[in-house]
Amino acid sequence: MSKKWVYLFREGDASMRDLLGGKGAGVAEMTRTGVPVPPGFTITTEACNAYYENGSQFPDGLWDQVLDALKDLEAQTGKTFGDPANPLLVSVRSGAKFSMPGMMDTVLNLGLNKETLEGLAKLTDNPRFAADAYRRFVQLFGKIVLGVDGEKFEHVMDEKKGHGQRLDTDLSTEELIEIANIFKQIIKDDQGVDFPEDPYEQLREAIAAVFKSWNGRRARDYRRINKISDSLGTGVNIQMMVFGNMGNDSATGVAFTRNPSTGEPVLFGEYLVNAQGEDVVAGVRTPQPISELKATMPEVYAQFDGITRQLEAHYKDVQDVEFTIERGKLWMLQTRNGKRTGVAALRIAVDLVNEGVIDKATAVQRIEPAQLDQLLHPMLDPKERAKVSALTTGLPASPGAATGKAVFHPDEAEELASQGEKVILIRTETAPEDFHGMVAAQAILTARGGMTSHAAVVARGMGKPCVAGAGELHVDYANQCVHVNGHTINKGDWVTLDGASGEVFAGKIPTIEPEISGHFATFISWTDEFRKLGVRANADTPQDARTARQFGAEGIGLCRTEHMFFEGNRIDAVREMILADTVEDRKAALAKIEPLQQGDFEGIFREMNGFPVTIRTLDPPLHEFLPHHDEEIRDLAQKVGQEFGKVKARVEELREANPMLGFRGCRLGILYPEITEMQARAIFKATVAVKKEGIDVHPEVMIPLVSTINELKRQEQIVRRVAGEVQAETGVAFTYMVGTMIELPRAALTANQIAEVAEFFSFGTNDLTQTTFGLSRDDAGRFLPLYVEEKILPDDPFQSIDQEGVGQLVQMGTERGRSTRPTLKVGICGEHGGDPASVEFFHRAGLNYVSCSPFRVPIARLAAAQAALGEGKRDK
Amino acid sequence: MSKKWVYLFREGDASMRDLLGGKGAGVAEMTRTGVPVPPGFTITTEACNAYYENGSQFPDGLWDQVLDALKDLEAQTGKTFGDPANPLLVSVRSGAKFSMPGMMDTVLNLGLNKETLEGLAKLTDNPRFAADAYRRFVQLFGKIVLGVDGEKFEHVMDEKKGHGQRLDTDLSTEELIEIANIFKQIIKDDQGVDFPEDPYEQLREAIAAVFKSWNGRRARDYRRINKISDSLGTGVNIQMMVFGNMGNDSATGVAFTRNPSTGEPVLFGEYLVNAQGEDVVAGVRTPQPISELKATMPEVYAQFDGITRQLEAHYKDVQDVEFTIERGKLWMLQTRNGKRTGVAALRIAVDLVNEGVIDKATAVQRIEPAQLDQLLHPMLDPKERAKVSALTTGLPASPGAATGKAVFHPDEAEELASQGEKVILIRTETAPEDFHGMVAAQAILTARGGMTSHAAVVARGMGKPCVAGAGELHVDYANQCVHVNGHTINKGDWVTLDGASGEVFAGKIPTIEPEISGHFATFISWTDEFRKLGVRANADTPQDARTARQFGAEGIGLCRTEHMFFEGNRIDAVREMILADTVEDRKAALAKIEPLQQGDFEGIFREMNGFPVTIRTLDPPLHEFLPHHDEEIRDLAQKVGQEFGKVKARVEELREANPMLGFRGCRLGILYPEITEMQARAIFKATVAVKKEGIDVHPEVMIPLVSTINELKRQEQIVRRVAGEVQAETGVAFTYMVGTMIELPRAALTANQIAEVAEFFSFGTNDLTQTTFGLSRDDAGRFLPLYVEEKILPDDPFQSIDQEGVGQLVQMGTERGRSTRPTLKVGICGEHGGDPASVEFFHRAGLNYVSCSPFRVPIARLAAAQAALGEGKRDK
Repeated sequence: MSKKWVYLFREGDASMRDLLGGKGAGVAEMTRTGVPVPPGFTITTEACNAYYENGSQFPDGLWDQVLDALKDLEAQTGKTFGDPANPLLVSVRSGAKFSMPGMMDTVLNLGLNKETLEGLAKLTDNPRFAADAYRRFVQLFGKIVLGVDGEKFEHVMDEKKGHGQRLDTDLSTEELIEIANIFKQIIKDDQGVDFPEDPYEQLREAIAAVFKSWNGRRARDYRRINKISDSLGTGVNIQMMVFGNMGNDSATGVAFTRNPSTGEPVLFGEYLVNAQGEDVVAGVRTPQPISELKATMPEVYAQFDGITRQLEAHYKDVQDVEFTIERGKLWMLQTRNGKRTGVAALRIAVDLVNEGVIDKATAVQRIEPAQLDQLLHPMLDPKERAKVSALTTGLPASPGAATGKAVFHPDEAEELASQGEKVILIRTETAPEDFHGMVAAQAILTARGGMTSHAAVVARGMGKPCVAGAGELHVDYANQCVHVNGHTINKGDWVTLDGASGEVFAGKIPTIEPEISGHFATFISWTDEFRKLGVRANADTPQDARTARQFGAEGIGLCRTEHMFFEGNRIDAVREMILADTVEDRKAALAKIEPLQQGDFEGIFREMNGFPVTIRTLDPPLHEFLPHHDEEIRDLAQKVGQEFGKVKARVEELREANPMLGFRGCRLGILYPEITEMQARAIFKATVAVKKEGIDVHPEVMIPLVSTINELKRQEQIVRRVAGEVQAETGVAFTYMVGTMIELPRAALTANQIAEVAEFFSFGTNDLTQTTFGLSRDDAGRFLPLYVEEKILPDDPFQSIDQEGVGQLVQMGTERGRSTRPTLKVGICGEHGGDPASVEFFHRAGLNYVSCSPFRVPIARLAAAQAALGEGKRDK
Repeated sequence: MSKKWVYLFREGDASMRDLLGGKGAGVAEMTRTGVPVPPGFTITTEACNAYYENGSQFPDGLWDQVLDALKDLEAQTGKTFGDPANPLLVSVRSGAKFSMPGMMDTVLNLGLNKETLEGLAKLTDNPRFAADAYRRFVQLFGKIVLGVDGEKFEHVMDEKKGHGQRLDTDLSTEELIEIANIFKQIIKDDQGVDFPEDPYEQLREAIAAVFKSWNGRRARDYRRINKISDSLGTGVNIQMMVFGNMGNDSATGVAFTRNPSTGEPVLFGEYLVNAQGEDVVAGVRTPQPISELKATMPEVYAQFDGITRQLEAHYKDVQDVEFTIERGKLWMLQTRNGKRTGVAALRIAVDLVNEGVIDKATAVQRIEPAQLDQLLHPMLDPKERAKVSALTTGLPASPGAATGKAVFHPDEAEELASQGEKVILIRTETAPEDFHGMVAAQAILTARGGMTSHAAVVARGMGKPCVAGAGELHVDYANQCVHVNGHTINKGDWVTLDGASGEVFAGKIPTIEPEISGHFATFISWTDEFRKLGVRANADTPQDARTARQFGAEGIGLCRTEHMFFEGNRIDAVREMILADTVEDRKAALAKIEPLQQGDFEGIFREMNGFPVTIRTLDPPLHEFLPHHDEEIRDLAQKVGQEFGKVKARVEELREANPMLGFRGCRLGILYPEITEMQARAIFKATVAVKKEGIDVHPEVMIPLVSTINELKRQEQIVRRVAGEVQAETGVAFTYMVGTMIELPRAALTANQIAEVAEFFSFGTNDLTQTTFGLSRDDAGRFLPLYVEEKILPDDPFQSIDQEGVGQLVQMGTERGRSTRPTLKVGICGEHGGDPASVEFFHRAGLNYVSCSPFRVPIARLAAAQAALGEGKRDK
């Protein structure tokens, strides 16, 4: 006996999504619960897979089971498939486990041919309706099953209607028949086949077409992008036709049980009288809001309202339903969980909890962390967006939309912004010295660099929109303009960009500010009841720290002291320090920086009252602080009173073949201990200062780029000595911790040794990914996209942590560190701290906290809660 | 009771080196075996350590034990310490476990003062001898124990002798006494202390001075450089004085039981009549060869000859002895294993085996692998070297000395060399495009770059001398000269360099060619009886392959195909390939390269008949093949018929922020599969061609820079497809392997997966070290020397593998790989393959083979044999 390939609707239920697909399981469940659903049956996803395994032939027994099911359908409906006297017509639809655009949609009215058309006309006493159904069927079948370009059919329709002078409904029976015949000729000309008159032949071809659409290009692309397995297969649903186009007592429509845009708890939808489903979607006529149904068909409306309430209660979630009213009788065609915006998702979750439908844990598991992202950034007004097309598209490096005047230099950005202008900073790529311009700008646009380029990282840190690596831009600094695909944007021209899509537009497009309603606060507070991971923020300024606290950060996991080096005129002292010939000169320059750093730390400590603040000592290569063009070097030489040649030589000397692997991190503090000393002093003097104000302060000094315990020991000794000195000088005692970044493979491998000294670890997963893969994030753009596209790597490892490789080092480092020091506090402060899949991994790895940019804190909180609830893995 | 701090000579033996030091154990052993040794005793190394632990005070009981030992000495000699009538005089010498320059040498004649001086004069009936002994004692004690600058004493002596008009022996008794008194005054003036007249005070101070010298700056430096532990401490030897200066029947000398320069098995040494030991060393008079002793004192000579034979037989090694003849009686003062040159070491080891004194295993363990290095390279004639001083010193990047005319451009090097000139190529740093000039030059000198810079690696590969990173050089290409410390070397000037010391000289210094005698061949063949590790060579050309075979390589572990890309005009086709816009253009350019590569492979396969050849597919970033100056770019644009701007843009586009972590290795072959395809085709067509000649060929195709199995899978598929095609086309079947480099941490971490595809692994420990440490070898020069100097790292990890960190990945990769594929062949082809300590580690890690540059193959063979014999670890 062959396998069971076919299930009648009454044989299935909601639990059978794997086998019947989402749509099939949905109608089966509705059937089971007594909702009026037109009878039908579902061909299983296994049959689809068997079809492919069988060389694109129906597997043994499938067709026989289809015929048996058809018999059952005939018995239920009292109609007969292919019978001119009383024809049974069916719809055929695809239905995979996950809703997927790109697969075959729907063929309606299947079973019509010249003979049954006559029967239908007689039976309904409505020849025009029958002709219209026939026309629709031939058109859909020709387009969807036989693959004729739909434009060709539309063109004929358009001509017949006098190019917009008449509506579809104005076409006469004869005209419709004529059109159907023209369609058949088009099919013959185009595909070289006759339109099949035999209903069984129609059905067989339609089923095969659904199977084939599973491997169509668009479906495969969609699965690749959405990481859905190719091996799931699709189901095929065959269902008795009901007709919303049988007169003014007929209608068809779609509805959501709650508003999918706002989450408002009212029935939301629209319908068309005397129409079939496709008309609603196609926008041929303007549909009426569902509320009008109450007035025109009060009984049907009441029944519909009851059914949708029943369905929502049954599924415990908002339902997206399709329905048809045939001569006053309501038929439910489909129900599924409704897609919704982030705002709506939050409100619905909160309302459902308040209504007692679901519990908080369910609510927390129901929101995709990425949905929160929408709520945290402005977006382009969709109506205005629709009117224009993008100039070019770069990488969506930091979400949010912004509009402003183009500027090409950070100083100009600063100047214009100070005059109240909104500006967009456009650069080939950005460097740390552009920081002030990035602060001043609404958004940043670069021609080079990846998702983790300087521009992208800094912009995300500031929660500012950024489009990076828009390779078609050619920035011409000399002429203060940028060329892109034949278009030129000059300084001062309006530009708009969308950091969520990577699109760049000429001109001004209005943006919509996000509304963070009370539901958001309610919802996000629930996450804290479940999560085990702490969530901190990466913040470098008091302003960042404040934002971080507002988003619920429980401390700072990474404060990058070097970002402070660029503010105002500080860079002069920093450069003086770098150019110093002697330890004394270096100390003199450092002495100028110390009070400024102290002030920064004080500000941050105040914002983080009661929470820990992890401060990383100087990390980047020194050449990042120096100018690189002769003119700037000349200026600098004058400022520090050295000869041009000498300064230039020093700049050259500091240039590195591989800066990522060069003279940076703790290597700086080891060669120049006075730098670490100054930073430690600034930290501890700030600690004392705010302590005196009554602030509860918890400084954690973090040494970067450690590869061996000996490096850490040396830096730790300096920090502890200075801490002792400051306590002695001020007479104020304080507690603090000294720890290290684990961002090199060797540090993870020797974590048991390093933990002898380190009181905490923070995994720097950006650098750890770079070194573990031997992959520079600045240079990966040439091949990494191909790697992801062709599944050489499952994901961009800079966006979502590489669990198999880099993840091993995270686990190893954590285990080995704790084997030496069981109380070791372990966190992570790379970009991955804000990535939900990575957060789930860090939860499993037993880390104490993640730290991410302030704007991703809510996402991390949610992801951490979901991880704790065991919902981090989604089965796809 | 206090610890035993003092051992009489007759209480010790040779096994007590840790406790008594090398010298103390040596005289004790001689005493035990009946050799005439002046009686004495040794203060233990533990006493030295206790002295430091005790705040630089003698530990409890030490002085009492010294006094007891002195009593024993008095009893043995019949003399009394400090007795004017019959004074006992002693020598005091340091003696640590390992012979160490920089520690206190010897104080002779201790116990003399005004009174005992008189006694000595009467007793010996030789007032002049006594006065001379007194003068020597005051001088040595003043200099060595009290720290007076020796020059001050020499100055007095010089004046008294009339500035060279008289010899020491011409000074009268009165003059000697006068000189001693002047010396005492100098001591008083210089150090503010009186010369101690009390012999016990003298002894106490001398012992303390030996202890202090253990922590003297030179001794500490020596230990740091030679990796000797600071905790060993030194012994102190106190011994009855015997006098070689008591007349013409007295003498003193040193000897080796075999010639330490050549190894020739004849007694080798020299002596001075009527002199004390220091005179031999100081070169005051020219000593006589030991053979003359046979004529002048035949009986003493016979006794001496017998004793030295006995000592050599006893120690089973060449002995370096000191002796004194006092009034016709022979005293042996010291014996130790003699230091010897590499040549001598080999000959002695082979002779001792042939004489049946030691077995082959002992012989193999007795040669330091580094000693072999001397034998494989020319060196500067030491006599000529002594006459000049170096202009500057760089890194000793590749051993051997060379002399030639300075040139600054590779083309010129090639041109002059083709005219028969010897040239030294001087560059700021070298790049792959300089390769032809490096081939033509005698040696390479660079101003920048470390021990593993391009110049260093390539030079070592070619066995050519190289001094790299000589930072004081300022190369002026425009004026074709180099400035160094005020000196200018112009094009064509003679320059000499010593790649073993890093020294650079102006002018021509003759070099001595190494003689590789039959002993070398005999010795090195023995290593193969013991070692378990295979030894292969890194070789890129048939010439390299031939050299490798001559040195005993058992195959090629790394053949870098890209080196072939620079030969002759091939670079044009390579550049054409890089600049190609389409796959077709790229294939057309590759088609030009294919037959040339095939020819190279054929040549290599022929040389390696019967042995495996591992060929790595293209590895370096493409920009390494492109010119970087506008002029060259213009030339190239013309050659390939493209616009200058376009070529320039492509050059810019390929520039990378971190080339080490960029678009290289298998990433090239994945983006441009046609490159891998061409290389595979060249390899397999060459395989078929030489197979037809009857060559036994074993190609192994190695994919570089793999981080995930998916990369390897894709490249492997190409290689296997091409192999199948070539076999089908030619009808010739052949076997081959496909494997991968393990040179990224992720590859080691996921080695179990990678071994599903790889048939062999080769650890690329250079890159693995760079990525594991996050350390670019090109940029490490700024801080790595400090790291090694201050013991932050025990060694330069690019020279000797970091066993704790990188080594873990080697072990992990090996274990995980073999867990998937037990037959997996595992090798290593980084620079570490030629480093003895690393070879020992790889032996322990269970690797199958190491691969190193051809000139280091004998060293690797020896190191591998020693590792197998369990002698890899030296206890220091």
